[in-house]
Amino acid sequence: MKKYSFSNDYAEGAHRNILDAIIKTNEIQEFGYGEDSICKEAKNILKKKIKNMDADIHFVAGGTQANLISISAMLHPWESIISVDTGHIISNEAGAIESVGYKIIETKGHNGKIVIEEVEKVLKINRGIHKTLPRVVFISNSTELGSVYKKEELQILSDFCKKNNLFLYLDGARIGSAITSDSNDLNLEEISNMVDIFYIGGTKNGALLGEAVIINNEKLKNNFKLNIKQKGALLAKGRILGIQFRELFKDNLFFDLAKYANIMASRMVNAIKKEGYNFYIEPVTNQIFPILPNNIIEEMSRYYDFNFYKEVDKNNSVIRLVTSWNTKEENVDEFLNYFRDIVNMKLK
Amino acid sequence: MKKYSFSNDYAEGAHRNILDAIIKTNEIQEFGYGEDSICKEAKNILKKKIKNMDADIHFVAGGTQANLISISAMLHPWESIISVDTGHIISNEAGAIESVGYKIIETKGHNGKIVIEEVEKVLKINRGIHKTLPRVVFISNSTELGSVYKKEELQILSDFCKKNNLFLYLDGARIGSAITSDSNDLNLEEISNMVDIFYIGGTKNGALLGEAVIINNEKLKNNFKLNIKQKGALLAKGRILGIQFRELFKDNLFFDLAKYANIMASRMVNAIKKEGYNFYIEPVTNQIFPILPNNIIEEMSRYYDFNFYKEVDKNNSVIRLVTSWNTKEENVDEFLNYFRDIVNMKLK
Amino acid sequence: MKKYSFSNDYAEGAHRNILDAIIKTNEIQEFGYGEDSICKEAKNILKKKIKNMDADIHFVAGGTQANLISISAMLHPWESIISVDTGHIISNEAGAIESVGYKIIETKGHNGKIVIEEVEKVLKINRGIHKTLPRVVFISNSTELGSVYKKEELQILSDFCKKNNLFLYLDGARIGSAITSDSNDLNLEEISNMVDIFYIGGTKNGALLGEAVIINNEKLKNNFKLNIKQKGALLAKGRILGIQFRELFKDNLFFDLAKYANIMASRMVNAIKKEGYNFYIEPVTNQIFPILPNNIIEEMSRYYDFNFYKEVDKNNSVIRLVTSWNTKEENVDEFLNYFRDIVNMKLK
Amino acid sequence: MKKYSFSNDYAEGAHRNILDAIIKTNEIQEFGYGEDSICKEAKNILKKKIKNMDADIHFVAGGTQANLISISAMLHPWESIISVDTGHIISNEAGAIESVGYKIIETKGHNGKIVIEEVEKVLKINRGIHKTLPRVVFISNSTELGSVYKKEELQILSDFCKKNNLFLYLDGARIGSAITSDSNDLNLEEISNMVDIFYIGGTKNGALLGEAVIINNEKLKNNFKLNIKQKGALLAKGRILGIQFRELFKDNLFFDLAKYANIMASRMVNAIKKEGYNFYIEPVTNQIFPILPNNIIEEMSRYYDFNFYKEVDKNNSVIRLVTSWNTKEENVDEFLNYFRDIVNMKLK
Repeated sequence: MKKYSFSNDYAEGAHRNILDAIIKTNEIQEFGYGEDSICKEAKNILKKKIKNMDADIHFVAGGTQANLISISAMLHPWESIISVDTGHIISNEAGAIESVGYKIIETKGHNGKIVIEEVEKVLKINRGIHKTLPRVVFISNSTELGSVYKKEELQILSDFCKKNNLFLYLDGARIGSAITSDSNDLNLEEISNMVDIFYIGGTKNGALLGEAVIINNEKLKNNFKLNIKQKGALLAKGRILGIQFRELFKDNLFFDLAKYANIMASRMVNAIKKEGYNFYIEPVTNQIFPILPNNIIEEMSRYYDFNFYKEVDKNNSVIRLVTSWNTKEENVDEFLNYFRDIVNMKLK
Repeated sequence: MKKYSFSNDYAEGAHRNILDAIIKTNEIQEFGYGEDSICKEAKNILKKKIKNMDADIHFVAGGTQANLISISAMLHPWESIISVDTGHIISNEAGAIESVGYKIIETKGHNGKIVIEEVEKVLKINRGIHKTLPRVVFISNSTELGSVYKKEELQILSDFCKKNNLFLYLDGARIGSAITSDSNDLNLEEISNMVDIFYIGGTKNGALLGEAVIINNEKLKNNFKLNIKQKGALLAKGRILGIQFRELFKDNLFFDLAKYANIMASRMVNAIKKEGYNFYIEPVTNQIFPILPNNIIEEMSRYYDFNFYKEVDKNNSVIRLVTSWNTKEENVDEFLNYFRDIVNMKLK
Repeated sequence: MKKYSFSNDYAEGAHRNILDAIIKTNEIQEFGYGEDSICKEAKNILKKKIKNMDADIHFVAGGTQANLISISAMLHPWESIISVDTGHIISNEAGAIESVGYKIIETKGHNGKIVIEEVEKVLKINRGIHKTLPRVVFISNSTELGSVYKKEELQILSDFCKKNNLFLYLDGARIGSAITSDSNDLNLEEISNMVDIFYIGGTKNGALLGEAVIINNEKLKNNFKLNIKQKGALLAKGRILGIQFRELFKDNLFFDLAKYANIMASRMVNAIKKEGYNFYIEPVTNQIFPILPNNIIEEMSRYYDFNFYKEVDKNNSVIRLVTSWNTKEENVDEFLNYFRDIVNMKLK
Repeated sequence: MKKYSFSNDYAEGAHRNILDAIIKTNEIQEFGYGEDSICKEAKNILKKKIKNMDADIHFVAGGTQANLISISAMLHPWESIISVDTGHIISNEAGAIESVGYKIIETKGHNGKIVIEEVEKVLKINRGIHKTLPRVVFISNSTELGSVYKKEELQILSDFCKKNNLFLYLDGARIGSAITSDSNDLNLEEISNMVDIFYIGGTKNGALLGEAVIINNEKLKNNFKLNIKQKGALLAKGRILGIQFRELFKDNLFFDLAKYANIMASRMVNAIKKEGYNFYIEPVTNQIFPILPNNIIEEMSRYYDFNFYKEVDKNNSVIRLVTSWNTKEENVDEFLNYFRDIVNMKLK
């Protein structure tokens, strides 16, 4: 792997503090399956951050697990989940949700976000005994397109769900990037208050692995851990998950790392805009989607890894560039220099 | 957690070599989802150990995942799996196998092991359109009772399965303890040759987490990784699993650790036998099941954690004691001294 | 098919009243999917019979459907169902319950019936996050062995379930034979009062097809019909089910037919006992299980169809003989004459 | 139910020949679960009609069952099915397919029919370990919009599927209306040759209930009946299904009934067109979709039952009118007279 990668935010290991903490606690005997003292400590820290000491918190190894376990806790077999067409559960989880029996109803997203009007259409059509009953609205923040929900948007959605007997579930694989975005006006506590279940993503923000599922709705708490076990998502050495969240949240590390990734992305955005290129969607977090000429993209791919996203026309395409907590300034600058060189060459 | 624990073999973290390797490779960018160079290296090492370069190998986070993914790869919905009544998929996985649609047919185990006669009974009864079609024989080695399969036993079972169109699947959560048992006459390569799929357990033998699923049967290889992803068991930072198996298998660490745990258990067995107590099942690996008077058990539980297993009569019960790669000799000796003291006191 | 059959109670078509009613209403336009006026009429009749006008009633085509739909309405994925080892959902439904994700926990039956002591053992073992949570007790009346629950037995079980937060579900495929048994002291209303959901079997008592699922527990009523549709069990021409239950229950036909089948069985029982043979289980309904010498069984099978049930010893086996609403007296007498002839011949 | 209904093709019972045959065979003892002589006879008749004596044929009670059983026979858990957005499995089966674990990928339909270009897009996107693997193309003939596949269209699709390792499955709930349409150039044998599995719908064409699933692909035949049993779709008195297909196919009754329904629809089409109204989709079978002014629709609904389909603009909507084998000419004429009256009134 010689090329430098802007493909994703999980190309490197974990933040050094996390590794140090793992080593430091390595010899201590702890109970298994998340009953250890470190998980308890981490949960307490998180409860304080969301200012809800009554929340139930569980750690699982990955985002798909977090989604499928939470959704199976919210739904009867005949109920369904609503998601935008770009939603992770539709586009990137290999049918995980359907594999445990649940239908996902697609709606058109607006900049990757769900809007009430589309949900209302779904509810109008999906009635009666020949249709599943929509029961959960699934969102991500930041979204798969890197956009973030504004406080007003989330409040409206939350109220709408309550009124329509729908659970609101938030996939927070990149909740750090959302909250530390310049576009954001929500804090963790506010987000938590507006949803029934959400998860805080560790894997994409400095952890080796691990997501913290947070349940605010009393009705959904029962036997959640048993459900985790059944889905094969309960680690024997659960301490390994707890310790990472303790390290990320005992101070402000989680947000510092996310903020840093956003800043690196922002530096790229400015440089790319300066060269006259537009973005598929206004970039505000650590995932950015520039529209570039195909020959420039090809040239870039000689020294850099990134994802092709979508054709725009015969000559131009959208790519995805992702920065992370561990993206080095020098690598960004090197990349941008190279980018400017290509652009200038092509223009001649 | 003040008591010393003989409850299980996952109470501590990981072997120091593993932690060192994680730190050493931490800054290297790698592809996600197990496509990294470290996983490739680890797989090659394992293929050489089992002397089958055509095997397919996948790393997953836990044993329940390994079981449910492998089983779902082997079965149509109308097919079923045969296991002894003490099998992990029956007693300890919270309905994971059934939750993805498959029936488990219980047979009586002999010392925790399956026997042909019982499987034949199952096959005789389960015929026709009102019964599921048995298609997989599930075994563990070492078993849930700590026993191990002899070469002859496994060969007979393997032949029987081939003849009867059954897949043979081996849960190797504790395959290290089996192979390094004094009772064992099988090596890893031989075990591998006799089964269609098996997994090598890392979690219970020195890893932070991780099991290596090994597929020998060509027909079962297709899209296995997609199946892993669907069950939520594919880690974004898959490198973390690969590196542990590389460390465990690049030399002989895996077997050294398992052997050590067995020796610690053996030391306990000798001492307990010397005091005149019997075992529920002849102890040959790191899980031992002494039968002790209830008042002694109670006394022991003041300073030690272990699991109650079963009542024998009004005054005596079976407990489970487990040693691990990280059980310290001094803790064993301390425990045995305490045990002898109690025994002597009670006799007075 | 030249042999006369005592194999089951569904060898012929339907009672003539039912066929007449189907013809009579054939040309009337009705709403589909059970929304028709005939189903409504049939439901009202049934509600009056069980004296619970608040019950919800749904008609489905078969018993396996009735069981799997009801069970999926009662359980979360991590919950399980308790049944005796001879239960229909274990022995005769081809893994239907597991195929929709639920584990069945087997208990030892006493004469085909469940007993509190065995359920208590199950509850004691199945606790914590490594086990499914038992949530439903499944029984049949009459049972697979032809036995019936006494009022006291059912009351104790019902109370126990309420106390232990368990649903009680009764498979009434042969509820007619139970209620009209000489051993019975329960009526339909009393049974209904003691269970959360049960179904009344039409197929095995004079209908072409059809079972009436009756839901007494308010919490289980929601979206039940949607669940039926999802499982593929909602007939477009649902009227065909309604009309059969209307005919069976508008007068006393259902019970008359069942009583008649029991009387035919009783005639057999007396004759077989008179020849000195015993029964595997005391026969009280339309399924009887005589223990006979193998040579007699072989001889019988030349002219009659019936099911082999179980070996007793080298020379004797249990068979199952079943009578139905349509078993003719002359066929029973002919069979019994033949049986006596064989017995006498063998004795010489 | 005072209004005459053009809502569907299952408002009445069964064709008289079917009822007569049920009565005539009622007293004959037969084996259960579709092993009876009548089902065998019916299967033989059908095999001759499709000119494939090697086909496997199974009868099930309803269309959703036929679809979910067939699809579960064709797919591994990680594989998926492609359907047009108006497909019955998407719009009208309450999540049945997802409930047994499979994802349906929606494509844009052209007049209710699937086209290669859209399937190719699906295949291009759904690759790799984050996506399910498309494995079945699902079509209906006639479609949910009443259109039919031309021979050339079906041949191209069939070839495409073979080339791309996709199974082709045809839902023939209304295959009678398709084959007897004036637009059709395919016969039953040709359709059968081009698909892996399809079913012939009895319920919507003169039967009380029942669909005949026909398996042409050798690989999909194994244990299909066991799968039927598992899904709860195997009737104890399976004879009831066999006899209906025997009656429908022993002569030409099935096609005569379908043809008749099409003629009735055609009579409506001509009259509606004559009044100057267009259709949402060119009507060629027994389901027609006229676009009418809302005030006319409202007036019509005073005396007739039919389904609202879709808004066109503020003043006009699409409705669905369905005729059947039992629609009486006089009812059609009465309806058309009333329709013309309303139209003339509104124009004044």
